[in-house]
Amino acid sequence: MTKINVEKCAKILRDKDNILILMHAHPDGDTLGCGFGLCRALLKMGKKARAICADEIPAKYAYLYEGMDIPEFDEDYIVAVDVATENLLGDLADVYSGKIDLCIDHHPSNSEYATYLLLNADAAAAAETVFKVIKALRVKIDRHIADCLYTGLTTDTGCFRYASTTSNTYRAAAELIDLGANNGIINRVMFETKTKTYAALERMAIEGMEFYSRDRICVITITQDMYRKSGSSEQETEAIAPLSRQQEGVEIGLTIREKADGKCKCSLRTYESVDASKLAALFGGGGHKQAAACKFDCGVEEAKAMLLEKCEEFLK
Amino acid sequence: MTKINVEKCAKILRDKDNILILMHAHPDGDTLGCGFGLCRALLKMGKKARAICADEIPAKYAYLYEGMDIPEFDEDYIVAVDVATENLLGDLADVYSGKIDLCIDHHPSNSEYATYLLLNADAAAAAETVFKVIKALRVKIDRHIADCLYTGLTTDTGCFRYASTTSNTYRAAAELIDLGANNGIINRVMFETKTKTYAALERMAIEGMEFYSRDRICVITITQDMYRKSGSSEQETEAIAPLSRQQEGVEIGLTIREKADGKCKCSLRTYESVDASKLAALFGGGGHKQAAACKFDCGVEEAKAMLLEKCEEFLK
Repeated sequence: MTKINVEKCAKILRDKDNILILMHAHPDGDTLGCGFGLCRALLKMGKKARAICADEIPAKYAYLYEGMDIPEFDEDYIVAVDVATENLLGDLADVYSGKIDLCIDHHPSNSEYATYLLLNADAAAAAETVFKVIKALRVKIDRHIADCLYTGLTTDTGCFRYASTTSNTYRAAAELIDLGANNGIINRVMFETKTKTYAALERMAIEGMEFYSRDRICVITITQDMYRKSGSSEQETEAIAPLSRQQEGVEIGLTIREKADGKCKCSLRTYESVDASKLAALFGGGGHKQAAACKFDCGVEEAKAMLLEKCEEFLK
Repeated sequence: MTKINVEKCAKILRDKDNILILMHAHPDGDTLGCGFGLCRALLKMGKKARAICADEIPAKYAYLYEGMDIPEFDEDYIVAVDVATENLLGDLADVYSGKIDLCIDHHPSNSEYATYLLLNADAAAAAETVFKVIKALRVKIDRHIADCLYTGLTTDTGCFRYASTTSNTYRAAAELIDLGANNGIINRVMFETKTKTYAALERMAIEGMEFYSRDRICVITITQDMYRKSGSSEQETEAIAPLSRQQEGVEIGLTIREKADGKCKCSLRTYESVDASKLAALFGGGGHKQAAACKFDCGVEEAKAMLLEKCEEFLK
């Protein structure tokens, strides 16, 4: 593994063709915005490129890839964007583990699996760094690329809300808006639009909130039964985890989602007092200081008991 | 009334002393951020200044004025910030109507009541313009002033979310963060912290949502009884109105709040298809295209019926 800077990353990409871009499983706006933004830029340079991920892409992100002409090709170079560890590739990990040539990321927990790593752990979103790479490639950024990169910025920062957001993030957003990013519509779709099924699920999630450790821990549980009753699905649960941290006094918010096979996963949201990535690491997960995730091979109740025990230790 | 630009406004303020700054009643982050930000800047220039509003300032805004040394003085010059019409001064209107020397505002509906008006209707927040004035005054902006102005920007844009937010808004935010604005904490307090009483009120509000005109209109009603049951108060209702516009398909969101005297007022939130300020104007109110407000001399049910009738006409 060799750590590289933006210029070196651009130089490498200029020299390559037939580029496959990998985005992480259960994709969010940052990995998708980086993947499709970079792909659009490489296509504009006359290269062959394609961006893929293991799971279905939620419909609200369709504008990121709409109108793209994807050529047929056999991949010669493999790039991962916003992917901290290879297992986050989901089903694609089986095919591509050990074969990734370049990774562009912002997770401090990046496991350094790629041959070249461009890591900016100070960036609030990986899209901040992909934006720099595209500028270094001297591609003329059109409104589609601007939409992709803006989407990465806004989704990973909770719309410029979280403490991870720096003046650089705001400046990048300003530049992208000037380049044509449709910030009003993007934020409306990402943050201000609840489907009826999601609204029903959210209501159940809020009604079922549990508080522990003198209200310093909030637990939201999303069960398969709640998906059935609301008509919602796991794809729509992205906005639930932040709710777990919103009630005054809560220092750790846990959102435990039951999977179809009865096992579960947990999203962790914390404030400064607790390092979420360290907490998640105890269960084989990872992420950022204030937002992390981990998986369990057991059911919701068992996972909750294990999590609460460790949370209480962290709060001491 | 004379319309002036930023330079002229700064020139006027440089020549004046003993300045009273008026903020609007039922104060929000923009009027408070502008008022205290400008006041702090004038104090730094060695002038006497004070910022006041008719209603109690919610506790979460205390950092805007904390640590300020307010000298005693009789006012010689009166400035209104983020105040579209004199009646929005609330109880202060009785004292100061017809006496306001200078107004700095961003409402297109500004009624031009002041002797001098600095109006930038393209600004997402009045704080964008006050920031320019303070720079033109050549005051060294410290972190307290930066916090005030950033608070104005973020609260009036729903944390840089609404379509009114431009690249200039983002650029101003970046500058203010570099000047010391504590964006992480401010956004956490403004958008990510629900008191238990507010959380209870919000739950009732969501449970009581009503939909009309094939779900194109959403009505939230907040009654005095709901304040009693939740322990919440009108001061905490700022975040409720945006909820009325969040469900997919809703074009007009109405939030009707019952006052202690049984009369009521309504916050309107719309999308492009409907001009909220025109709708509110039918009932003597005003505001922006996508966010406005009006008052009623009747109870909630009567106001709702009148509003729904006009909303349906607007949707035709």
